[in-house]
Amino acid sequence: MDERTALRLLAADLPGAGDDAAIVDDLVVTTDMLHEATDFPAGTTRYTAGWRAVGASLSDVAAMGATATCAVAVYAAPELDEAELGDFVQGARDVCEAVSAEYVGGDLDTHHEFTAVSTAIGRTDDPVLRSGATPGDLLCVTGELGRSAAAVRLFDAGEVERANDLFRFTPRVDAGVELRDTATAMMDSSDGLARSVHQLAEASDCGFELDWDALPVHDAVETVATDDTDHRDLAAYFGEDFELVFTISEDELDAARAEIDVPLTVVGRATTGSEVVADGEAVPDRGYTHGGD
Amino acid sequence: MDERTALRLLAADLPGAGDDAAIVDDLVVTTDMLHEATDFPAGTTRYTAGWRAVGASLSDVAAMGATATCAVAVYAAPELDEAELGDFVQGARDVCEAVSAEYVGGDLDTHHEFTAVSTAIGRTDDPVLRSGATPGDLLCVTGELGRSAAAVRLFDAGEVERANDLFRFTPRVDAGVELRDTATAMMDSSDGLARSVHQLAEASDCGFELDWDALPVHDAVETVATDDTDHRDLAAYFGEDFELVFTISEDELDAARAEIDVPLTVVGRATTGSEVVADGEAVPDRGYTHGGD
Repeated sequence: MDERTALRLLAADLPGAGDDAAIVDDLVVTTDMLHEATDFPAGTTRYTAGWRAVGASLSDVAAMGATATCAVAVYAAPELDEAELGDFVQGARDVCEAVSAEYVGGDLDTHHEFTAVSTAIGRTDDPVLRSGATPGDLLCVTGELGRSAAAVRLFDAGEVERANDLFRFTPRVDAGVELRDTATAMMDSSDGLARSVHQLAEASDCGFELDWDALPVHDAVETVATDDTDHRDLAAYFGEDFELVFTISEDELDAARAEIDVPLTVVGRATTGSEVVADGEAVPDRGYTHGGD
Repeated sequence: MDERTALRLLAADLPGAGDDAAIVDDLVVTTDMLHEATDFPAGTTRYTAGWRAVGASLSDVAAMGATATCAVAVYAAPELDEAELGDFVQGARDVCEAVSAEYVGGDLDTHHEFTAVSTAIGRTDDPVLRSGATPGDLLCVTGELGRSAAAVRLFDAGEVERANDLFRFTPRVDAGVELRDTATAMMDSSDGLARSVHQLAEASDCGFELDWDALPVHDAVETVATDDTDHRDLAAYFGEDFELVFTISEDELDAARAEIDVPLTVVGRATTGSEVVADGEAVPDRGYTHGGD
């Protein structure tokens, strides 16, 4: 059983689960495990790891259109080094502060592999789900894609400082809150844009037409991509980015842009049917599978 | 740096942390990592593991006198086996149901060692802290001590079914809620009674006199203890039990007993000074260190 199948089984069985975060009363709750082998390339600082682990959960809170209340994290490593732990906690605190949430601690454990598990809690009375897109809605993303993909290449190349900078993203909590009344469907791009759009299509029972040329791609991708195919892979399929992918009525877009501090880019449109296509060709449903392929 | 030192450093630096659960507005939040090498002896079923991992977090919610709202868990194992995952989730759901909380899912990961990380959220406007005991207050525990200690011996002896039964405790959420107006200080006994009392003493700036003979010890301890010293070790020092340890004014005890479904046993009294003694001798501050000694 691969992880995606397992996650589907879980979601099907749990009424509160299945979107980017679970919904309980006025709370949204999300938890994520990251570990060295799959999530923290050699050169990732503990400060970046703390920021990124907690940031990933805060991004799920953002994807629900919720305010971010607080986060906790478990830090597990072969040895509990005071400086490393301090750096991790500082990263966790700083990413919380960036979205006006409170970092309130967690648990420690010795573990043969460095592992971080973060849980974030947000509040909203009216969460934005993945299921509300209607044919005709514009498909948009916040910020720029490919940041983490470029970072991984830069870690491989030994450009560690730049890679760490790229790995520390700002969760889009403010944008998510501003979009909660106008976005018809929303999630984050952690599985890659292509897979995210497939997930919106499935949840909303619609199709999407993407415009590859419209994708807002981070400058760093230009410097690491080997050719055009690689460029698209990094921007649209690699994933582990934490931008919001959302749909919105065309009438609402200008007002949303005026309210939100990060760029919103239209990258396509919801369609009738169930296909996800770009420039007339089917977009494969592939992307990042956490802990998997 | 050992884990206890590391935890202290964390608590000192984080205003919201340091009790059994962190407090944020009207929420209490707690997270715990358990893994095979230190927490799940050979023979522990995945159902028991799910129950116990989530139960440990719910016990922290109980220790704050909060109602239990929900829990999430991360399941990480070398292979994602459908039956094992299903059993784990069922255990997590059942322990939530036992305390009227909602299990709302979590995350999955492949990891070389079976690892479970649970996070529970509760609500209270007036959490019970460890710091409110006053000399003269009675020291009490819910239920019976030594349950997990006996279970570990039974796992070693191959009596797996009985051991699994003992490992699945009911978190004392109902008792915690009933005690929230009368308990002056409260925590759970997960580090063992002796260490818990030391922690109450330190937080409340008082001492305690314990009465060893008064300890309510689970029957199973009788069957596995090798002698009287061992019996005391299992009941008072081994830990990993999840009973409430609390202080209460003598005037309030009868009313509390009348309201609460589990037995409350008086095991000592808060004193002036800072010593923890039993039968005239100092009680060492030793017990279970999570992931440590």
